[in-house]
Amino acid sequence: MSSAIPEPVTKLAEAFSRLPGVGPKTASRLTYFLLRAPEDYSLSLAAALTDLKALTRFCSVCFNITVDDPCPICISRERDADTIAVIEEPLDLMALERTGIYKGRYHVLHGAISPVSGIGPDDLKIRELVARVENGDTREVIIATNPGMEGDATAMYLQRELAGTGVVVTRLARGLPTGGDLEYVDSVTLMQALEGRSQLA
Amino acid sequence: MSSAIPEPVTKLAEAFSRLPGVGPKTASRLTYFLLRAPEDYSLSLAAALTDLKALTRFCSVCFNITVDDPCPICISRERDADTIAVIEEPLDLMALERTGIYKGRYHVLHGAISPVSGIGPDDLKIRELVARVENGDTREVIIATNPGMEGDATAMYLQRELAGTGVVVTRLARGLPTGGDLEYVDSVTLMQALEGRSQLA
Repeated sequence: MSSAIPEPVTKLAEAFSRLPGVGPKTASRLTYFLLRAPEDYSLSLAAALTDLKALTRFCSVCFNITVDDPCPICISRERDADTIAVIEEPLDLMALERTGIYKGRYHVLHGAISPVSGIGPDDLKIRELVARVENGDTREVIIATNPGMEGDATAMYLQRELAGTGVVVTRLARGLPTGGDLEYVDSVTLMQALEGRSQLA
Repeated sequence: MSSAIPEPVTKLAEAFSRLPGVGPKTASRLTYFLLRAPEDYSLSLAAALTDLKALTRFCSVCFNITVDDPCPICISRERDADTIAVIEEPLDLMALERTGIYKGRYHVLHGAISPVSGIGPDDLKIRELVARVENGDTREVIIATNPGMEGDATAMYLQRELAGTGVVVTRLARGLPTGGDLEYVDSVTLMQALEGRSQLA
Protein backbone atom coordinates (compact mmCIF):
# COMPACT_ATOMS: atom_id res chain seq x y z
CA MET A 1 0.00 0.00 0.00
CA SER A 2 2.75 2.46 0.92
CA SER A 3 4.13 2.38 -2.61
CA ALA A 4 0.73 3.56 -3.84
CA ILE A 5 1.09 6.90 -2.05
CA PRO A 6 3.97 9.15 -3.12
CA GLU A 7 6.27 10.38 -0.39
CA PRO A 8 5.50 14.13 -0.74
CA VAL A 9 1.85 13.27 -0.07
CA THR A 10 2.50 11.11 3.01
CA LYS A 11 5.00 13.67 4.33
CA LEU A 12 2.50 16.52 4.20
CA ALA A 13 -0.27 14.35 5.63
CA GLU A 14 2.03 13.40 8.52
CA ALA A 15 2.93 17.04 9.13
CA PHE A 16 -0.76 18.01 9.16
CA SER A 17 -1.68 15.18 11.51
CA ARG A 18 0.64 16.61 14.16
CA LEU A 19 -1.62 19.67 14.44
CA PRO A 20 -4.05 19.59 17.36
CA GLY A 21 -7.47 18.20 16.41
CA VAL A 22 -6.27 16.91 13.04
CA GLY A 23 -6.43 13.11 12.77
CA PRO A 24 -4.96 10.99 9.97
CA LYS A 25 -8.20 11.14 7.91
CA THR A 26 -8.47 14.93 8.09
CA ALA A 27 -4.75 15.18 7.31
CA SER A 28 -5.25 13.13 4.12
CA ARG A 29 -8.28 15.18 3.16
CA LEU A 30 -6.37 18.46 3.59
CA THR A 31 -3.46 17.09 1.56
CA TYR A 32 -5.64 15.98 -1.33
CA PHE A 33 -7.49 19.27 -1.20
CA LEU A 34 -4.18 21.07 -1.68
CA LEU A 35 -3.22 18.71 -4.52
CA ARG A 36 -6.25 19.96 -6.42
CA ALA A 37 -6.05 23.59 -5.32
CA PRO A 38 -3.86 26.07 -7.22
CA GLU A 39 -0.18 25.73 -6.30
CA ASP A 40 -0.19 29.38 -5.14
CA TYR A 41 -2.27 28.39 -2.18
CA SER A 42 0.14 25.73 -0.87
CA LEU A 43 3.00 28.17 -1.40
CA SER A 44 1.29 31.06 0.40
CA LEU A 45 0.50 28.75 3.32
CA ALA A 46 4.15 27.63 3.35
CA ALA A 47 5.33 31.26 3.32
CA ALA A 48 2.98 32.20 6.14
CA LEU A 49 4.31 29.29 8.20
CA THR A 50 7.90 30.33 7.61
CA ASP A 51 7.19 33.96 8.49
CA LEU A 52 5.24 33.13 11.62
CA LYS A 53 8.23 32.62 13.90
CA ALA A 54 10.76 34.51 11.83
CA LEU A 55 8.86 37.79 12.10
CA THR A 56 7.30 37.55 15.57
CA ARG A 57 8.56 37.63 19.12
CA PHE A 58 7.18 38.23 22.62
CA CYS A 59 6.63 41.81 23.72
CA SER A 60 9.20 42.46 26.47
CA VAL A 61 6.57 44.32 28.51
CA CYS A 62 3.35 42.27 28.25
CA PHE A 63 4.62 39.05 26.58
CA ASN A 64 1.97 39.14 23.88
CA ILE A 65 3.07 38.06 20.40
CA THR A 66 4.27 41.00 18.38
CA VAL A 67 6.35 42.12 15.43
CA ASP A 68 7.62 45.30 17.10
CA ASP A 69 8.85 45.38 20.67
CA PRO A 70 7.20 46.85 22.74
CA CYS A 71 3.91 45.84 21.12
CA PRO A 72 1.38 48.37 19.75
CA ILE A 73 -0.88 48.01 22.80
CA CYS A 74 1.94 48.67 25.27
CA ILE A 75 2.98 51.89 23.54
CA SER A 76 -0.50 53.11 22.58
CA ARG A 77 -1.43 56.41 24.18
CA GLU A 78 -5.10 55.58 23.74
CA ARG A 79 -4.95 52.69 26.19
CA ASP A 80 -5.12 53.20 29.97
CA ALA A 81 -1.60 52.63 31.23
CA ASP A 82 -2.80 52.09 34.78
CA THR A 83 -4.93 48.98 34.18
CA ILE A 84 -3.49 45.55 33.36
CA ALA A 85 -5.61 42.52 32.43
CA VAL A 86 -3.72 39.31 33.24
CA ILE A 87 -4.51 36.50 30.81
CA GLU A 88 -3.27 32.99 30.22
CA GLU A 89 -2.86 33.01 26.43
CA PRO A 90 -2.63 35.48 23.51
CA LEU A 91 -6.00 34.13 22.26
CA ASP A 92 -7.60 35.39 25.47
CA LEU A 93 -6.41 38.87 24.54
CA MET A 94 -8.35 38.69 21.30
CA ALA A 95 -11.46 37.58 23.17
CA LEU A 96 -11.21 40.63 25.46
CA GLU A 97 -10.49 42.96 22.51
CA ARG A 98 -13.62 41.67 20.77
CA THR A 99 -15.76 43.01 23.64
CA GLY A 100 -14.66 46.49 22.54
CA ILE A 101 -14.96 47.84 26.10
CA TYR A 102 -11.58 47.04 27.57
CA LYS A 103 -9.17 49.94 27.09
CA GLY A 104 -6.33 48.93 29.41
CA ARG A 105 -3.17 46.95 28.78
CA TYR A 106 -2.40 43.25 29.07
CA HIS A 107 -0.02 40.78 30.64
CA VAL A 108 0.18 37.32 29.09
CA LEU A 109 1.21 34.60 31.57
CA HIS A 110 1.64 31.92 28.89
CA GLY A 111 -0.17 29.26 30.87
CA ALA A 112 -1.69 28.66 34.28
CA ILE A 113 -0.44 26.98 37.43
CA SER A 114 -1.08 23.27 37.01
CA PRO A 115 0.55 20.78 39.40
CA VAL A 116 -0.82 17.92 37.25
CA SER A 117 1.09 19.18 34.18
CA GLY A 118 4.08 20.19 36.29
CA ILE A 119 3.59 23.91 35.61
CA GLY A 120 4.54 26.07 38.59
CA PRO A 121 4.56 29.86 39.09
CA ASP A 122 8.17 30.08 37.84
CA ASP A 123 7.15 28.68 34.45
CA LEU A 124 4.80 31.62 33.93
CA LYS A 125 5.43 35.33 33.45
CA ILE A 126 4.39 36.06 37.05
CA ARG A 127 7.67 37.49 38.32
CA GLU A 128 7.62 39.85 35.34
CA LEU A 129 4.07 40.95 36.23
CA VAL A 130 4.99 41.71 39.84
CA ALA A 131 8.05 43.68 38.71
CA ARG A 132 5.92 45.56 36.18
CA VAL A 133 3.41 46.51 38.89
CA GLU A 134 6.13 47.45 41.39
CA ASN A 135 8.01 49.63 38.94
CA GLY A 136 5.06 51.26 37.19
CA ASP A 137 2.02 53.28 38.16
CA THR A 138 -0.56 50.52 37.83
CA ARG A 139 -3.82 51.22 39.62
CA GLU A 140 -5.73 47.98 38.93
CA VAL A 141 -4.81 44.44 37.94
CA ILE A 142 -7.78 42.55 36.48
CA ILE A 143 -7.17 38.81 36.78
CA ALA A 144 -8.73 37.30 33.65
CA THR A 145 -7.48 33.74 33.95
CA ASN A 146 -9.84 30.97 32.83
CA PRO A 147 -12.79 30.13 35.11
CA GLY A 148 -11.56 26.68 36.14
CA MET A 149 -9.33 24.90 38.63
CA GLU A 150 -6.02 25.98 37.10
CA GLY A 151 -7.18 29.53 36.41
CA ASP A 152 -8.49 29.77 39.99
CA ALA A 153 -5.21 28.50 41.45
CA THR A 154 -3.30 31.01 39.35
CA ALA A 155 -5.64 33.84 40.42
CA MET A 156 -5.15 32.95 44.09
CA TYR A 157 -1.39 32.89 43.67
CA LEU A 158 -1.38 36.23 41.83
CA GLN A 159 -3.59 37.81 44.48
CA ARG A 160 -1.09 36.80 47.17
CA GLU A 161 1.92 37.95 45.16
CA LEU A 162 0.37 41.34 44.43
CA ALA A 163 -0.88 41.89 47.99
CA GLY A 164 2.07 44.05 49.06
CA THR A 165 2.09 46.31 46.02
CA GLY A 166 -0.90 48.47 46.96
CA VAL A 167 -2.57 47.81 43.61
CA VAL A 168 -6.31 47.01 43.34
CA VAL A 169 -6.67 43.35 42.31
CA THR A 170 -10.00 42.32 40.72
CA ARG A 171 -11.22 39.24 38.90
CA LEU A 172 -13.76 38.75 36.08
CA ALA A 173 -17.30 38.02 37.35
CA ARG A 174 -18.58 34.46 37.49
CA GLY A 175 -22.20 33.63 36.71
CA LEU A 176 -24.63 32.58 34.04
CA PRO A 177 -23.37 32.88 30.47
CA THR A 178 -25.64 34.97 28.24
CA GLY A 179 -27.78 32.80 26.00
CA GLY A 180 -27.45 29.84 28.36
CA ASP A 181 -30.39 27.95 29.79
CA LEU A 182 -30.76 27.69 33.56
CA GLU A 183 -31.87 24.08 33.16
CA TYR A 184 -28.58 23.08 31.56
CA VAL A 185 -26.18 25.23 33.55
CA ASP A 186 -23.79 23.22 35.76
CA SER A 187 -24.33 23.53 39.50
CA VAL A 188 -20.97 25.20 40.23
CA THR A 189 -21.80 28.02 37.81
CA LEU A 190 -25.30 28.30 39.25
CA MET A 191 -23.85 28.43 42.77
CA GLN A 192 -21.53 31.23 41.71
CA ALA A 193 -24.40 33.06 40.02
CA LEU A 194 -26.32 32.89 43.29
CA GLU A 195 -23.37 34.07 45.38
CA GLY A 196 -22.66 36.94 42.99
CA ARG A 197 -26.30 38.01 42.60
CA SER A 198 -26.89 41.73 42.35
CA GLN A 199 -29.76 43.77 43.75
CA LEU A 200 -32.09 45.19 41.11
CA ALA A 201 -34.30 47.39 43.26
CA MET B 1 -8.45 45.19 17.53
CA SER B 2 -6.47 44.52 14.37
CA SER B 3 -3.43 46.30 15.74
CA ALA B 4 -3.45 43.83 18.62
CA ILE B 5 -2.72 40.89 16.33
CA PRO B 6 0.56 40.96 14.44
CA GLU B 7 0.34 40.50 10.67
CA PRO B 8 2.29 37.21 10.46
CA VAL B 9 -0.28 35.72 12.84
CA THR B 10 -3.36 36.94 10.94
CA LYS B 11 -1.80 35.92 7.64
CA LEU B 12 -1.24 32.33 8.73
CA ALA B 13 -4.68 32.16 10.35
CA GLU B 14 -6.22 33.40 7.10
CA ALA B 15 -4.28 30.84 5.08
CA PHE B 16 -5.40 28.05 7.41
CA SER B 17 -9.03 29.16 7.30
CA ARG B 18 -9.11 28.58 3.54
CA LEU B 19 -8.63 24.84 4.15
CA PRO B 20 -11.84 22.80 4.01
CA GLY B 21 -13.42 22.27 7.43
CA VAL B 22 -11.21 24.87 9.09
CA GLY B 23 -13.16 27.88 10.41
CA PRO B 24 -11.67 31.10 11.75
CA LYS B 25 -11.56 29.77 15.34
CA THR B 26 -9.75 26.56 14.41
CA ALA B 27 -7.41 28.60 12.22
CA SER B 28 -6.48 30.82 15.19
CA ARG B 29 -6.03 27.80 17.42
CA LEU B 30 -3.70 26.12 14.91
CA THR B 31 -1.72 29.35 14.52
CA TYR B 32 -1.24 29.82 18.25
CA PHE B 33 -0.35 26.16 18.61
CA LEU B 34 2.44 26.68 16.08
CA LEU B 35 3.59 29.83 17.86
CA ARG B 36 4.26 27.72 20.93
CA ALA B 37 5.56 24.63 19.11
CA PRO B 38 9.26 24.38 18.13
CA GLU B 39 10.06 26.41 15.01
CA ASP B 40 11.21 23.18 13.30
CA TYR B 41 7.65 22.06 13.11
CA SER B 42 6.33 25.11 11.24
CA LEU B 43 9.31 24.89 8.91
CA SER B 44 8.84 21.18 8.17
CA LEU B 45 5.16 21.79 7.45
CA ALA B 46 6.16 24.65 5.14
CA ALA B 47 8.68 22.43 3.35
CA ALA B 48 6.14 19.63 2.93
CA LEU B 49 3.68 22.13 1.43
CA THR B 50 6.26 23.42 -1.01
CA ASP B 51 7.30 19.91 -2.05
CA LEU B 52 3.74 18.67 -2.50
CA LYS B 53 3.18 20.11 -5.95
CA ALA B 54 6.82 20.55 -6.91
CA LEU B 55 7.57 16.83 -6.62
CA THR B 56 4.29 15.25 -7.70
CA ARG B 57 2.35 14.95 -10.95
CA PHE B 58 -0.40 12.80 -12.41
CA CYS B 59 0.54 9.36 -13.74
CA SER B 60 0.08 9.54 -17.52
CA VAL B 61 -1.54 6.08 -17.51
CA CYS B 62 -3.91 6.00 -14.51
CA PHE B 63 -3.91 9.69 -13.43
CA ASN B 64 -3.14 8.88 -9.82
CA ILE B 65 -0.77 11.25 -8.03
CA THR B 66 2.81 10.10 -8.35
CA VAL B 67 6.45 11.15 -8.19
CA ASP B 68 7.57 8.88 -11.04
CA ASP B 69 5.62 8.56 -14.27
CA PRO B 70 4.23 5.94 -14.86
CA CYS B 71 3.36 5.35 -11.22
CA PRO B 72 4.58 2.31 -9.22
CA ILE B 73 1.19 0.55 -9.52
CA CYS B 74 1.06 0.95 -13.31
CA ILE B 75 4.51 -0.60 -13.79
CA SER B 76 4.30 -3.22 -11.04
CA ARG B 77 4.55 -6.79 -12.35
CA GLU B 78 2.77 -8.03 -9.23
CA ARG B 79 -0.48 -6.29 -10.18
CA ASP B 80 -2.96 -7.76 -12.67
CA ALA B 81 -2.59 -5.70 -15.81
CA ASP B 82 -5.94 -6.88 -17.16
CA THR B 83 -8.15 -5.41 -14.40
CA ILE B 84 -8.80 -1.69 -13.95
CA ALA B 85 -10.74 -0.21 -11.02
CA VAL B 86 -12.22 3.15 -12.00
CA ILE B 87 -12.36 5.58 -9.08
CA GLU B 88 -13.32 9.21 -8.60
CA GLU B 89 -10.44 10.41 -6.42
CA PRO B 90 -6.93 9.35 -5.33
CA LEU B 91 -8.27 8.90 -1.80
CA ASP B 92 -10.58 6.16 -3.11
CA LEU B 93 -7.49 4.30 -4.29
CA MET B 94 -6.18 4.21 -0.75
CA ALA B 95 -9.49 2.87 0.51
CA LEU B 96 -9.33 0.01 -2.00
CA GLU B 97 -5.66 -0.66 -1.20
CA ARG B 98 -6.54 -0.91 2.49
CA THR B 99 -8.79 -3.91 1.78
CA GLY B 100 -5.63 -5.78 0.75
CA ILE B 101 -7.54 -7.95 -1.74
CA TYR B 102 -7.50 -5.83 -4.88
CA LYS B 103 -4.50 -6.67 -7.04
CA GLY B 104 -5.43 -4.91 -10.29
CA ARG B 105 -4.65 -1.43 -11.55
CA TYR B 106 -6.53 1.85 -11.28
CA HIS B 107 -7.91 4.71 -13.31
CA VAL B 108 -8.62 7.97 -11.49
CA LEU B 109 -11.40 10.05 -13.08
CA HIS B 110 -10.76 13.12 -10.89
CA GLY B 111 -14.42 13.69 -10.20
CA ALA B 112 -17.85 12.44 -11.18
CA ILE B 113 -20.42 13.64 -13.67
CA SER B 114 -22.45 16.35 -11.94
CA PRO B 115 -24.77 18.59 -13.98
CA VAL B 116 -25.41 20.65 -10.81
CA SER B 117 -21.71 21.52 -10.48
CA GLY B 118 -21.32 21.80 -14.24
CA ILE B 119 -19.00 18.77 -14.49
CA GLY B 120 -19.52 16.81 -17.67
CA PRO B 121 -17.81 13.69 -19.07
CA ASP B 122 -15.19 15.82 -20.85
CA ASP B 123 -14.00 17.25 -17.53
CA LEU B 124 -13.08 13.75 -16.34
CA LYS B 125 -10.44 11.29 -17.49
CA ILE B 126 -13.06 9.21 -19.31
CA ARG B 127 -11.72 9.55 -22.84
CA GLU B 128 -8.34 8.42 -21.52
CA LEU B 129 -9.97 5.37 -19.91
CA VAL B 130 -11.69 4.33 -23.11
CA ALA B 131 -8.44 4.76 -25.08
CA ARG B 132 -6.59 2.75 -22.45
CA VAL B 133 -9.12 -0.09 -22.70
CA GLU B 134 -9.17 0.00 -26.51
CA ASN B 135 -5.38 -0.05 -26.85
CA GLY B 136 -4.57 -2.51 -24.06
CA ASP B 137 -5.52 -6.04 -23.09
CA THR B 138 -7.95 -5.18 -20.32
CA ARG B 139 -10.30 -8.01 -19.39
CA GLU B 140 -12.41 -6.32 -16.69
CA VAL B 141 -13.24 -2.74 -15.72
CA ILE B 142 -14.58 -2.50 -12.16
CA ILE B 143 -16.55 0.72 -11.75
CA ALA B 144 -15.86 1.87 -8.20
CA THR B 145 -17.45 5.32 -8.29
CA ASN B 146 -19.23 6.50 -5.15
CA PRO B 147 -22.61 4.95 -4.35
CA GLY B 148 -24.67 8.10 -4.93
CA MET B 149 -26.41 10.07 -7.62
CA GLU B 150 -23.25 11.45 -9.26
CA GLY B 151 -21.36 8.18 -8.98
CA ASP B 152 -24.34 6.33 -10.45
CA ALA B 153 -24.61 8.75 -13.38
CA THR B 154 -20.88 8.37 -14.02
CA ALA B 155 -21.16 4.57 -13.85
CA MET B 156 -24.01 4.58 -16.36
CA TYR B 157 -22.07 6.82 -18.73
CA LEU B 158 -18.94 4.64 -18.45
CA GLN B 159 -20.96 1.48 -19.06
CA ARG B 160 -22.28 2.96 -22.31
CA GLU B 161 -18.88 4.25 -23.43
CA LEU B 162 -17.22 0.89 -22.79
CA ALA B 163 -20.01 -1.16 -24.38
CA GLY B 164 -18.26 -1.51 -27.73
CA THR B 165 -14.87 -2.51 -26.39
CA GLY B 166 -15.70 -6.13 -25.50
CA VAL B 167 -14.42 -5.65 -21.94
CA VAL B 168 -16.33 -7.01 -18.92
CA VAL B 169 -17.76 -4.04 -16.98
CA THR B 170 -18.69 -4.64 -13.32
CA ARG B 171 -19.63 -2.41 -10.42
CA LEU B 172 -19.04 -2.67 -6.67
CA ALA B 173 -21.91 -4.38 -4.80
CA ARG B 174 -24.53 -2.29 -3.01
CA GLY B 175 -26.05 -3.43 0.28
CA LEU B 176 -25.79 -3.24 4.04
CA PRO B 177 -22.54 -1.83 5.41
CA THR B 178 -20.83 -4.18 7.89
CA GLY B 179 -21.37 -3.02 11.45
CA GLY B 180 -24.51 -1.15 10.48
CA ASP B 181 -27.87 -1.62 12.15
CA LEU B 182 -30.85 -2.61 10.00
CA GLU B 183 -33.00 -0.25 12.05
CA TYR B 184 -30.94 2.76 11.04
CA VAL B 185 -30.11 1.88 7.47
CA ASP B 186 -31.71 4.21 4.89
CA SER B 187 -34.45 2.70 2.74
CA VAL B 188 -32.56 3.02 -0.57
CA THR B 189 -29.68 0.96 0.82
CA LEU B 190 -32.13 -1.58 2.26
CA MET B 191 -33.91 -1.80 -1.08
CA GLN B 192 -30.60 -2.47 -2.81
CA ALA B 193 -29.67 -5.05 -0.17
CA LEU B 194 -32.97 -6.83 -0.91
CA GLU B 195 -32.47 -6.68 -4.67
CA GLY B 196 -28.91 -7.95 -4.40
CA ARG B 197 -29.70 -10.72 -1.89
CA SER B 198 -27.74 -13.92 -2.34
CA GLN B 199 -28.93 -17.48 -1.79
CA LEU B 200 -27.31 -19.19 1.17
CA ALA B 201 -28.62 -22.75 0.76
